[in-house]
Amino acid sequence: MTDHIHPTATVSEEAEVPEDVQVGPYTLIHGNVRVGVGSVIESHCVLGHPSPTPNSGALVLGPGALIRSHSVFYEGSTFGEGLTTGHRVTVREGIQAGSGLQIGTLCDFQGHATIGDHVRTHSNVHIGQKSIIGSYVWIFPYVVLTNDPHPPSDGFLAGVTVEDYVVLATMCTILPGLNIGTRSVVAAHALVTKNVLPDTLVAGVPARSMGLASRVMLGDDSGPAYPWMHHFHRGYPSAVVQRWLKEYP
Amino acid sequence: MTDHIHPTATVSEEAEVPEDVQVGPYTLIHGNVRVGVGSVIESHCVLGHPSPTPNSGALVLGPGALIRSHSVFYEGSTFGEGLTTGHRVTVREGIQAGSGLQIGTLCDFQGHATIGDHVRTHSNVHIGQKSIIGSYVWIFPYVVLTNDPHPPSDGFLAGVTVEDYVVLATMCTILPGLNIGTRSVVAAHALVTKNVLPDTLVAGVPARSMGLASRVMLGDDSGPAYPWMHHFHRGYPSAVVQRWLKEYP
Amino acid sequence: MTDHIHPTATVSEEAEVPEDVQVGPYTLIHGNVRVGVGSVIESHCVLGHPSPTPNSGALVLGPGALIRSHSVFYEGSTFGEGLTTGHRVTVREGIQAGSGLQIGTLCDFQGHATIGDHVRTHSNVHIGQKSIIGSYVWIFPYVVLTNDPHPPSDGFLAGVTVEDYVVLATMCTILPGLNIGTRSVVAAHALVTKNVLPDTLVAGVPARSMGLASRVMLGDDSGPAYPWMHHFHRGYPSAVVQRWLKEYP
Repeated sequence: MTDHIHPTATVSEEAEVPEDVQVGPYTLIHGNVRVGVGSVIESHCVLGHPSPTPNSGALVLGPGALIRSHSVFYEGSTFGEGLTTGHRVTVREGIQAGSGLQIGTLCDFQGHATIGDHVRTHSNVHIGQKSIIGSYVWIFPYVVLTNDPHPPSDGFLAGVTVEDYVVLATMCTILPGLNIGTRSVVAAHALVTKNVLPDTLVAGVPARSMGLASRVMLGDDSGPAYPWMHHFHRGYPSAVVQRWLKEYP
Repeated sequence: MTDHIHPTATVSEEAEVPEDVQVGPYTLIHGNVRVGVGSVIESHCVLGHPSPTPNSGALVLGPGALIRSHSVFYEGSTFGEGLTTGHRVTVREGIQAGSGLQIGTLCDFQGHATIGDHVRTHSNVHIGQKSIIGSYVWIFPYVVLTNDPHPPSDGFLAGVTVEDYVVLATMCTILPGLNIGTRSVVAAHALVTKNVLPDTLVAGVPARSMGLASRVMLGDDSGPAYPWMHHFHRGYPSAVVQRWLKEYP
Repeated sequence: MTDHIHPTATVSEEAEVPEDVQVGPYTLIHGNVRVGVGSVIESHCVLGHPSPTPNSGALVLGPGALIRSHSVFYEGSTFGEGLTTGHRVTVREGIQAGSGLQIGTLCDFQGHATIGDHVRTHSNVHIGQKSIIGSYVWIFPYVVLTNDPHPPSDGFLAGVTVEDYVVLATMCTILPGLNIGTRSVVAAHALVTKNVLPDTLVAGVPARSMGLASRVMLGDDSGPAYPWMHHFHRGYPSAVVQRWLKEYP
């Protein structure tokens, strides 16, 4: 071990931890882990927790990951470049995620899910197994993507599909197997019981269509709030933002 | 200390930790703890945290417990055989639980509650004090069992009673002092403000009866989804399953 | 280091940790931290986590703080006397809080907020940035104070203002920029979409006024449940209670 690994950390000799990776105090890294160059793993984490699924494969973190304290990642998932997490996230096996994923504090990813590029989940989001999440999706606090149409069941699990650019606002619940169409917006505290059409705003319990999301205006009446790519660009790659400026002027 | 206890762990000499118990890195076990044979205590846990309630007694874990990382158990609770937890669960003093309890990641058990056999809570479930939970109950993510009819109050706390075989679906809230009848089903995101009759499905805010739960069909129309003991047997003892096959053919 | 700091803890020499402060096992204290006399910092905590906001200043904990295990506090916040937390709380930079604050297990304070005296949050409460919380406020489990009127946005964030003595019951969500008037009560599982008048009870999705909160009676019909200062005094300073006995006889 070299000084990039805190002396109190416990790192398996079989783990691939490049020399420019920082590993914080009291962090445990199992053998079945490959950490990308330039990553930071904060204190009190567990990487590569053994999975109950046989032959899950390694935990692979792309370059430049930032894993904040008290987080737990199982073996058997792969993340692209620039993964960033809040504190105490839990990520089970079987996830394939693109680049630029941001996972908020306390999030609970149950594993066996597919996630596109530049997805951002705020705090305390629950992603059920078999979820399929596109790219540039936003998921706000306490949202739950369910997967069991009549719990408990076996053989009937059906994940939620969330298409590109969707916004799921605080504390909404999406019932199993539903499709949330591209650029749609689910309002806070909604219960989604039917598929959501593209570009639509839905709200309520159960959620009903409120019309086109583009009818929601920004607070200064400078234009529509949605699609949000009109006005919100913070942290996205400049090539992506250039494309948005053309597609959503 | 022997090699079944990780060298970075801190285990009180007064704790009863049999030689076949595995204790992970950075785990703290206080003196007032009795761990059952064959148990696994993962990393970053705290067992036997001192309770503010005087004379709480020991934390007693039955044989074959699996406590996943970052979990905190106070002294003064007793769990039967085969307790299994997710990560970062918090369990306060004064809980009496039967065998086969499964506690999901991030669950918050406030203590002073009674739990039957083979209860399963999914992630992020909040069990208020004075809750009484029967056997074979399922509680799904973000469910809250409340206990204060007009918070804050003293001397008026009234826990929820959840009878055998009940299913509480994702993000439902149960108001204080209510009784949830045996084999009933509370739908996702419901707010339960009245007692729920046995075998009934309730849904909505506030929750209303949708009729008999047995009218919900399985996804392949092979039969009713409830009572779920008809078709779901994974992980239960074979004697229990044999009984169900007779009672719920 | 002296014996008030557990030998497994990692404490920066630049941190101010008075000799009567107890620091538990596996706790990490960064340099930019000032802990008040008589405080207890339990195990597996992180104090003074570096903030991404430049020049955030120190983390200052007043005298007599009790920080329970697995909690994370960033630099750049100040707390008055007698701060008490549950387990695994996350508190970001930029918070100014008065005395007697109680933060429940799993709470997630996003930072950049103002909090008065003797505020109590139960478990798993999410406080968005720009929230302004008065004194003697109660916030129950799974409540979210939001701040973005059309997420995601930049430059439009508007925090919630919660006035003195307010009660926010379990799992209610408050939309951005709203004002919750003094002594009002928001019922469990409500979605608050409009300002709430003082002394009012609101309930439902969306929340509607149910009339004066004082019409809610205590369980033994001994008097109104609200304002709660009539009947609930546990743990408040005697000078405060004496004042309440005159103002709310």
